[in-house]
Amino acid sequence: MTNMESGAARVMSRADILATYSESPEHLTRAYLTPEHRNAHDQLAQWMTQAGLETWQDSVGNQWGRKVSSNPTMPTLLLGSHSDTVANAGKYDGNLGVILGLEALALLKDVELPYHVDVVAFADEEGTRFNTTLIGSSSVAGCFQPSWLEVEDAQGISMGKAMHDFGLAPTLAGHDARVASDILAYLEVHIEQGPVLEAKELPVGVVTGIAGAKRYEMTVKGMAGHAGTVPISLRQDAFCGMAQMASEIEAYALSHNIVATIGKCDVLPGAVNVIPGEVRFTLDIRSLSQVQLEQCCDELLAKLANIAAQRNLSFSHRQLYQAQAVPCDDALQQRWASVVEKHTQQTPCFLPSGAGHDAMVMANVADIGMLFVRCDRGISHHPAESVMESDVAVALDCFTDMIQSFAN
Amino acid sequence: MTNMESGAARVMSRADILATYSESPEHLTRAYLTPEHRNAHDQLAQWMTQAGLETWQDSVGNQWGRKVSSNPTMPTLLLGSHSDTVANAGKYDGNLGVILGLEALALLKDVELPYHVDVVAFADEEGTRFNTTLIGSSSVAGCFQPSWLEVEDAQGISMGKAMHDFGLAPTLAGHDARVASDILAYLEVHIEQGPVLEAKELPVGVVTGIAGAKRYEMTVKGMAGHAGTVPISLRQDAFCGMAQMASEIEAYALSHNIVATIGKCDVLPGAVNVIPGEVRFTLDIRSLSQVQLEQCCDELLAKLANIAAQRNLSFSHRQLYQAQAVPCDDALQQRWASVVEKHTQQTPCFLPSGAGHDAMVMANVADIGMLFVRCDRGISHHPAESVMESDVAVALDCFTDMIQSFAN
Repeated sequence: MTNMESGAARVMSRADILATYSESPEHLTRAYLTPEHRNAHDQLAQWMTQAGLETWQDSVGNQWGRKVSSNPTMPTLLLGSHSDTVANAGKYDGNLGVILGLEALALLKDVELPYHVDVVAFADEEGTRFNTTLIGSSSVAGCFQPSWLEVEDAQGISMGKAMHDFGLAPTLAGHDARVASDILAYLEVHIEQGPVLEAKELPVGVVTGIAGAKRYEMTVKGMAGHAGTVPISLRQDAFCGMAQMASEIEAYALSHNIVATIGKCDVLPGAVNVIPGEVRFTLDIRSLSQVQLEQCCDELLAKLANIAAQRNLSFSHRQLYQAQAVPCDDALQQRWASVVEKHTQQTPCFLPSGAGHDAMVMANVADIGMLFVRCDRGISHHPAESVMESDVAVALDCFTDMIQSFAN
Repeated sequence: MTNMESGAARVMSRADILATYSESPEHLTRAYLTPEHRNAHDQLAQWMTQAGLETWQDSVGNQWGRKVSSNPTMPTLLLGSHSDTVANAGKYDGNLGVILGLEALALLKDVELPYHVDVVAFADEEGTRFNTTLIGSSSVAGCFQPSWLEVEDAQGISMGKAMHDFGLAPTLAGHDARVASDILAYLEVHIEQGPVLEAKELPVGVVTGIAGAKRYEMTVKGMAGHAGTVPISLRQDAFCGMAQMASEIEAYALSHNIVATIGKCDVLPGAVNVIPGEVRFTLDIRSLSQVQLEQCCDELLAKLANIAAQRNLSFSHRQLYQAQAVPCDDALQQRWASVVEKHTQQTPCFLPSGAGHDAMVMANVADIGMLFVRCDRGISHHPAESVMESDVAVALDCFTDMIQSFAN
C-alpha cells in the first residue's frame, strides 16, 4: 500500500468517524455552536496535532491547523471547507475537503515549504441553525455582520448567546479576519454535488467558478371558472399559461447552457373541477457569468410576459434572492489542471459550480481555486451521499501536489 | 308592462327574496334539511298556492306544486330544478329554474291543459351538507340509496337523523319515486354557468346534453436534485414533464372540442432550489359523447405516458370519479329550438352542459329537455352570479310556450 492509498483509506475512515458527531445517532445533523460542533472540532484538532500542525480556534469557532514554515518567504496558503452539515446530511459535503486538506498536510509533514499552510474547518456554511449561511468563512474574509449576533435559532436563542455558551466572546466575532496581503491563495476541495463528472467518467474536475443565482416568485393570474362549462377557447387558465412558461424556461436554459428550475408551484383555488385563476411559482436561475445571468433573466422575463399577454393573463414577478457569480482564479485553474492531468492521464474537465461554497466568500480576500470530486449520481444533502475511495486517492494526489506547487 | 315583463320582474324579485333564506345574513348558503331549507320551501309553497297549484312535500323534502288538469289525457309534465345552494353561493343556480317554472304556471293559471304540470324544487343537488349530491332528484327518479341515510355531515349528524329532525320518515325516503310511464317529459331551465351564450350574445340556448366526466390523479416521478448543480440535459425533472403534459392536454382538448382541466398540482419536495422529483396533478375531462370521452381519455393517457417515457420519467394514473354522459332528448331539443327561435328571432344556439344537473338523474325516468339562460361572465357558485332581467323574460316566454306545446 502506497502512502497515497493509505491516505485515501484514512480519509474515508475519518469521514465515517466525523459523521458520528451528530445531533442524533440515527441521522447526521451537525449545526453551528452545538455540542457536536465542539466534539467534531476537538476530534479535528487532535488529528491536526498528530499531523504536526499548530492548532487554534478562531473568534467564531472555526478550527484551524497550521503547517508552520521555518522560513516563510511568502504569504500563507489557505486550505479549507466546512465541518457543519444540513439536517439529515451525507458524510462528505464540506467535511471531505477539511479531512483531505488535513491528510495532505500529514503526508507533507516532513516537506519544508517557504510558506505556512493553514487548513480550516469552517464551523458554519449551511446555515442549518440560524438560516444565516457562510458564517465561518464570512468571519475569516472580513464579512461578518455584527447584526447576525441578534439572529435567533428555532428555540429563540440568539447567535450571540450561543457563541457565549460555546465559550466564545461574541463582541470579538470577526475581529480576527485574515487580510488579502497575507494570503497566497485559498484552495477548496469539495464533492461535486452534481452528476457531470460521473457522466464524463472522471474522478475529479477543475472548478471554473461559482455560479451567480437569482430567485424569483412569479404570479400568473387569469380567470377561475367551472371545469365543465368554459370551452378551452374562452378560458384564461393560469395553469396552462404557467405550463407554457415552464416549457419555455426549460428550452431557453438548455439552449443557453444555464440552469433554471421551477421548484415550487401553488395553484389557486386548487380544486379538481375549477379552472385555476392564479398560479404562483418560483424560478431559480444560475449562470457562471454574471453578465449572462442578468441578460438571460431579462430575456426570459420578457418571454414569460409575452406568453401571458398572448393568453390574456396577467404576469408579475418579484426577486427573492440573488448571489453574484464568483469566478475561480484563472492561474489557479491552470495549476489544478496540471496536477489533475498528471494524476489522471486524462484531459482535465473544467466545470462550474452551481452550488455555493466557502470559496465564494473567501474570494473577498484571496484568489480562489477549487477541485471537485465525483459523487454518486450527484446526490448531496442526503444520507446517500457517496464518493469512491479511488477518487479520493486521486484528489489527495492532486491536492498534495497543488499545495507544494507554490514553492516553484 | 306586459304579463311577461311583470313576470320576469317578479322572478328577479323572488330570487332576491329566496336568497334571504340562508345560514347567514352575510352570504347565501342553504343546505339540505336545515331551517333555511324549511323556510325557503314554505315560501315556495306559499307562492305555489298563490299560483293556484296543489302543493306537497315528498319523502326526502322536495317541494312540489301541481297545476291540475281537469281532464288529463296524457302523463304529467315535470318542471324542476334545485333550491339548495353551495356555500357562499349566487342567487340563480337552481333557484332560477324553480322560480321560472312556478312563474310560468302562474301565467298559465287560466289555461286548461290535457296534462298535469308539476313544478318541483329539489331539496338537494349540490351535496353541500352530506357531500352526497343530487339527493332530491335521485329520490324522484327511483335512485335513492338507503345507505345514504348513514352518511354524516360535518357535525356527525346522519342524513337519517337529519331527515327525522326535519319531520320526514327516513325509512320512506325514495318510496314515492315517480315512474316513467306517468311522466310526459322533464324540463329544466338553468343558468349556463359558462360564458358561451354571452360570447354569442344570446339570451338563452338549447342544451344538447350533460357531458360525461372522468377525473384522474396523475403522478409523474423523476429524480430530485440540486437546482444549481445538475445540467438541464442530465435532469429528470418531474415538473418540466408535467408542464409538457399540461400543454399537450390543452392542445388536445382544443382540437377535439372537449374540455380538460388541471385544477390541482402538488410538487415534491417543493423547495425553491430543488429540482422536483415528483409531481401529482388532477385531470378533469368531459365530453357530451360518452364514446368520445372514453376514446379521448385512452388517447390522452397514452400521449402523457409517451411524454414521460421520452423524458425518462415514470407516469401513473388513478381514476378518481366518473359520470356517464346524458343526452337531452332530440325531440325536446327541437321543441325548445322552435320556441327560442320564435321569441328571439335568432337561430337557436345548441350547447352542451359541462356541469351536472338534476336533469341527468331525471333521465332515468323521463325524456329530458333543458334551456340555459345567459349569465354574467359565466360566473357561478359565487355571490357575483348574475342574470339580466331581459334574458329572464325571454326564458319565461320560451318556458311558457314550451309547457303548452305538448297539448298540440
